[in-house]
Amino acid sequence: MKFVIIGGDAAGMSAASRAKRRQPGTEVMVLEQTDDVSYSACGMPYNIADPTREMDDLIVRHPRVFREKQGIDLRTGHRVEAIDPVQKAVRGTTCGGKSFQVPYDKLLIATGASAIIPGLPGFDLPGVMGLKNLEDGRRIKRFMADHKTRKDIIIGMGYIALEMCEALRARQLDVTMVKTRPVFLPWMNEDLSAMVKEEVTANGVAIYPGQEVRAIEQVDGDLKVGCQDLKLDAQMVLAAIGVRPNSGLAQDAGLQLGKKMAIAVDKSLRTSEQDIYAAGDCADAYHVVTGRKTWVPLALRANRAGWAVADNVTGGAKMLPGIVGTAVFKVFNLQVARTGLNPAEAIDAGFEPIEVMIKGRTRAHAHPGASTIGVQMVGDRKSGRLLGVQMVGKEGVAHRIDAAAVALHAGMTVDAFSQSDLAYAPPFGPVWDPLLTAANQLSKKI
Amino acid sequence: MKFVIIGGDAAGMSAASRAKRRQPGTEVMVLEQTDDVSYSACGMPYNIADPTREMDDLIVRHPRVFREKQGIDLRTGHRVEAIDPVQKAVRGTTCGGKSFQVPYDKLLIATGASAIIPGLPGFDLPGVMGLKNLEDGRRIKRFMADHKTRKDIIIGMGYIALEMCEALRARQLDVTMVKTRPVFLPWMNEDLSAMVKEEVTANGVAIYPGQEVRAIEQVDGDLKVGCQDLKLDAQMVLAAIGVRPNSGLAQDAGLQLGKKMAIAVDKSLRTSEQDIYAAGDCADAYHVVTGRKTWVPLALRANRAGWAVADNVTGGAKMLPGIVGTAVFKVFNLQVARTGLNPAEAIDAGFEPIEVMIKGRTRAHAHPGASTIGVQMVGDRKSGRLLGVQMVGKEGVAHRIDAAAVALHAGMTVDAFSQSDLAYAPPFGPVWDPLLTAANQLSKKI
Repeated sequence: MKFVIIGGDAAGMSAASRAKRRQPGTEVMVLEQTDDVSYSACGMPYNIADPTREMDDLIVRHPRVFREKQGIDLRTGHRVEAIDPVQKAVRGTTCGGKSFQVPYDKLLIATGASAIIPGLPGFDLPGVMGLKNLEDGRRIKRFMADHKTRKDIIIGMGYIALEMCEALRARQLDVTMVKTRPVFLPWMNEDLSAMVKEEVTANGVAIYPGQEVRAIEQVDGDLKVGCQDLKLDAQMVLAAIGVRPNSGLAQDAGLQLGKKMAIAVDKSLRTSEQDIYAAGDCADAYHVVTGRKTWVPLALRANRAGWAVADNVTGGAKMLPGIVGTAVFKVFNLQVARTGLNPAEAIDAGFEPIEVMIKGRTRAHAHPGASTIGVQMVGDRKSGRLLGVQMVGKEGVAHRIDAAAVALHAGMTVDAFSQSDLAYAPPFGPVWDPLLTAANQLSKKI
Repeated sequence: MKFVIIGGDAAGMSAASRAKRRQPGTEVMVLEQTDDVSYSACGMPYNIADPTREMDDLIVRHPRVFREKQGIDLRTGHRVEAIDPVQKAVRGTTCGGKSFQVPYDKLLIATGASAIIPGLPGFDLPGVMGLKNLEDGRRIKRFMADHKTRKDIIIGMGYIALEMCEALRARQLDVTMVKTRPVFLPWMNEDLSAMVKEEVTANGVAIYPGQEVRAIEQVDGDLKVGCQDLKLDAQMVLAAIGVRPNSGLAQDAGLQLGKKMAIAVDKSLRTSEQDIYAAGDCADAYHVVTGRKTWVPLALRANRAGWAVADNVTGGAKMLPGIVGTAVFKVFNLQVARTGLNPAEAIDAGFEPIEVMIKGRTRAHAHPGASTIGVQMVGDRKSGRLLGVQMVGKEGVAHRIDAAAVALHAGMTVDAFSQSDLAYAPPFGPVWDPLLTAANQLSKKI
């Protein structure tokens, strides 16, 4: 059996390794267009923050390990350009310009996502960069080393934008953030969003939401960024307005696309073609709370989906229940997390959301070092179900959110969740954990 | 309606406040034998660690607030000595030696637990102390201030013993810990227990399990502690071998006792007498995983039970599902947590436990500052259910355990738990959270 995988990052390499482990006789081939496979993409901002570290520190497993130790036919520099579901073959070109054609029995599309770079004047200038793969990271670090960068403009205010603003401040750069939409974090509760904004500006970052970028020019070696009512200049511009799924190959092959143009897959990760699977940032997923399709490009989902595909092409029958939309990021001294639905998403999914927003403390009464933790909790009036939680604080946020995520997977009501026997000790929270305080109040309101 | 409460700490004052809030016409009387109500008992070790802080910092709400702002008839210095369920009255003596008798319509026994002080020679000497209530805490601090204490011996190795060994090391004392049973933390996985032991000894604490204390003598102003094969000397001895429920009053009144001689209550916190409730450390509780009774003297449970009693005496019908045995403590730089059953408890409850023990990292690949996190996970071979988790690490343990606690409440299988969409970002853990790695491995084993 020949199992061919397009793309050698999280989903692709997880699938390759596991298929070979489960069924060593399987012929596993991975076609990756870059030279990098299996790296921690999420670690790039932290690597960029430290000029003494090599970007290659983020490589988790080198190509030779996959080839020599695991017996995977890993071909880097192999760009796939077409899938033929009828002939069951893929075609492409190597970085050396040679054409190749490879037949498959089972195919996995794990092509990931790409940073969106607007097609506006000047976005192709040197110094204007996105950050998605390791080569993007190397390019940014090289540029900073070569150009004595003093000022950077970040376009966008998503997770990567915020992680990068911290990284660049650590490198002593002046950082300005702009974005088109007028609200700083539109998906977030206003009070929580205000806590994040305060932390970012307190760390010397200028924030301009509602400033659409019109064009970038190069003047005397500097980049001039023209926005609606603002002219900014810098040596470097980071375009972090979002990512889009790399689903072009699948679309051209006639596969069905789903949410946000990601490749539509069922719970076994199968596409609309019997022998073709898709996994990772290029594919959609089920949302456990809504029961509908969603698209969330995150690492855990990609790894898990890669494993499930490996199980399914080697005789297993793994079905993934789906995701609940859990995410966390750090920005300066704040931890920011969410899981499930915010009120707008809840309405959209047909729920009747009721919410509470509370501010608690991260440590017990009279315990030194306590700080504020903000919790928004959303429940459904009709069913009493917990729908989502958002949280911001200096400590205890990143893992506390997981309790709510598990409750969402279990379909718990807010009332049942409020009865949870959560851990308590003075250094880690008050007797009534902020999650429980929120649940108690929300339960009463419902 | 007259609602009388015996005991003015977590359960008692929670019940009093909530009953008055829900139904302001209720006559609420609290009879407390000490002068302290509503304080953070768990904060005492941290308060003792800092000689500049007053023990009274731990008081959450002063008696006058309950009396003047909340209209609660709070009587401190009132020791109840008998309950008469037939006459529906309680009798006792004030600290001034006056007898009192009070009738009730509904009664709550919230008498808490007491530190066990062995009846051995010398345990009544000055300098030999327990730590359960605020007055115990004040006595320890006073003793340390008055006696230039240089050496302390802690008898016992439970949560309080370990928190106190950290506190006393912070005060520059020589600390030696002894206990009768030969195993350091018998309820804990061996590898995890070894991590805790290493941390404690690395911080200069001498540990002697398997050393039964026989007697304490006072010689030249010092205390000599005679153990099996060991003679130790110190200025202060802390007896922290455990606590027992204060259920004597209830027993004398003919109420049914349950697990570990705690007062037996149903899910509505009612005792074997129709109009008498019990809540907090003096009462037992249901264990959600086993469905059986258990006795766990912890603060959250006490507060929650107090609220439920208030609901039930004011016309509500609150049933508490029970606890899952979640606990966390900090010792030096380690966080130690557990929830659910360990393998021995699982066997005892009729399960067929299968376990895994993994060591993971607290941060992502190549992220600076990562350290080891140990996770033991137990599941049931027959049903596939998650039964319990134990965890030790320098960071990310205290709140991570809550995800497992919620899964236990929901009755999740290990396999379902392994599919949880947990939060990931490089500063907070690897892509596969240590909880998920443990669940993946355990799921395969089951």
